[in-house]
Amino acid sequence: MANVVKEETVFRKIAAAFAASRTSLTGVRLGIGDDAALFAPRTGCETILSCDWFLEGTHFLRDKHPAEAVGWKSLGRAMSDLAAMGGTPRCFLLSMALPTELTGRWLTGFLGGIRGASEKFGCVAAGGDTTRRKEILINITVVGEVKKGRALLRSGARVGDELFVSGTLGEAELGLRQLRKKKGLARATNAALRKHLYPEPRIALGQWLAEKRLATAMMDLSDGLSTDLLRLCAASGVGAKVEAAALPCVGSRDRADGLALALHGGDDYELLFSVSEKQAKHVPKSYRGLALTRIGKIVAGKSIKLALGDSRERTLAPGGWDPFRE
Amino acid sequence: MANVVKEETVFRKIAAAFAASRTSLTGVRLGIGDDAALFAPRTGCETILSCDWFLEGTHFLRDKHPAEAVGWKSLGRAMSDLAAMGGTPRCFLLSMALPTELTGRWLTGFLGGIRGASEKFGCVAAGGDTTRRKEILINITVVGEVKKGRALLRSGARVGDELFVSGTLGEAELGLRQLRKKKGLARATNAALRKHLYPEPRIALGQWLAEKRLATAMMDLSDGLSTDLLRLCAASGVGAKVEAAALPCVGSRDRADGLALALHGGDDYELLFSVSEKQAKHVPKSYRGLALTRIGKIVAGKSIKLALGDSRERTLAPGGWDPFRE
Repeated sequence: MANVVKEETVFRKIAAAFAASRTSLTGVRLGIGDDAALFAPRTGCETILSCDWFLEGTHFLRDKHPAEAVGWKSLGRAMSDLAAMGGTPRCFLLSMALPTELTGRWLTGFLGGIRGASEKFGCVAAGGDTTRRKEILINITVVGEVKKGRALLRSGARVGDELFVSGTLGEAELGLRQLRKKKGLARATNAALRKHLYPEPRIALGQWLAEKRLATAMMDLSDGLSTDLLRLCAASGVGAKVEAAALPCVGSRDRADGLALALHGGDDYELLFSVSEKQAKHVPKSYRGLALTRIGKIVAGKSIKLALGDSRERTLAPGGWDPFRE
Repeated sequence: MANVVKEETVFRKIAAAFAASRTSLTGVRLGIGDDAALFAPRTGCETILSCDWFLEGTHFLRDKHPAEAVGWKSLGRAMSDLAAMGGTPRCFLLSMALPTELTGRWLTGFLGGIRGASEKFGCVAAGGDTTRRKEILINITVVGEVKKGRALLRSGARVGDELFVSGTLGEAELGLRQLRKKKGLARATNAALRKHLYPEPRIALGQWLAEKRLATAMMDLSDGLSTDLLRLCAASGVGAKVEAAALPCVGSRDRADGLALALHGGDDYELLFSVSEKQAKHVPKSYRGLALTRIGKIVAGKSIKLALGDSRERTLAPGGWDPFRE
């Protein structure tokens, strides 16, 4: 067809990848192909939204991260923002810019990866925007729902609350370290690499904590505990004391290194949440096989302290990922 | 404060720029500063969403487009997608990547421009994502509401419908041409430059057409009439015949040039809509001072014809903007 312009070809490939999505089950009334998407949350719910960059060179490397992992991770980490509030992702908008030479096999792999995450977590494609660019640029908006008044904010932590995290901290950063050392495209040959390449948003845990009204505040760990905990504390107007010995670190021959990874490693997408002293005993050791670990306490003041044992403690400065740090 | 990381500084500057926004009036329950935003459309409405790239080098030039215009236009064109369905923009998510050296005066100008469009059209900032990058990257998700079942889709045009456009076509492209010839940052010294730099989404017109059930199909003209009309026709499974003499072209000494601008010029953000033959007489000559012009008809088949007078006609191939055309 002489009428077909190249942008339409790219667009159709994207639309076809998601054609089987059952949009009717997800509140999406109109998906890909019009000026905008239509969404209606279930009765008693409100719409919850978040957007996330995923940029070549900044967040992933074309020669190290397989296209499938780029697709999966771009959606996985975006869904994590909704998990962090106890919300349920329902659909997403995909903004992509990519070079013409990647519209073949690379795009197919990417779409396979994003479709995998989409199907696993029931979050369908509802629209997007596509353009050409030398480097791969991805921006994802995830849209979902949460029961009115039940969203878990960063601002609800109170002095005396206990602090918890899910899973293992520093694992994704360890995976990134391994990926950097290897030549060529990485494969998920162990847990650390798998967590770095194919992160799983903690949606079920977030929903459960919101539903049971267990957590007082919550967020996801994307830039590292030392950076993210400071954000939760600032939003709540409190301080915190973290016990180094309590942190669920990755097994490492070097204990100091395991601790540094747990404190400052990014990309874990685990949940950090506070629970009132009274309710803390109702937090189980694990939820659906995912460990839940008490790591410290909310205290008065503004600073974050790290207790090292023998009553030694030091201020925990934010050492996680910050794109603007030179 | 030793604790403050640079990303927080950029974030706070953005948050401060929108601090005065009256989020309570717009359905936004939780804005900037948490993991995600919360939105509830008014009773009887559904949520409408769209996202849009606005990239340095692709969509604007740092040395030609003032920071204020980059801010205004990034939001203005994104809101146009909601106008194109008869929706009302309520809030937006701003994803920005920019170089550290632009976090001062440039960012202030940008935020002033985006705030101007935000205030003029009642669409408040509800969240976003920020990172550092050599080039300026912007992606905006606009969220709004439309009465259930009233959104005007691209797919509703039927054979026999009359085709209309708002405003003047090709004006923004003429403005771009002028901007390219000048040295340094452009200023909105005439209507064409103003339309290129500070486009106004046709929100009121779109709402009115949806409310009166006048239009059968609608979209906004972002890439040029010849490209966009093909999209509307493809979605509706119809063809169209456009009358060259009827097009609302920009005044130009060269008539052929004015026609080419009207057919293929991008960035106008006018509305293109079809109206049944019976209802066409109810379309006024103008709506709130904005001209509405009948430009042709929906016909059977798949092709778009351009009638040139004297019963001559030719196929109108898509000649608008396509990022993937080499």
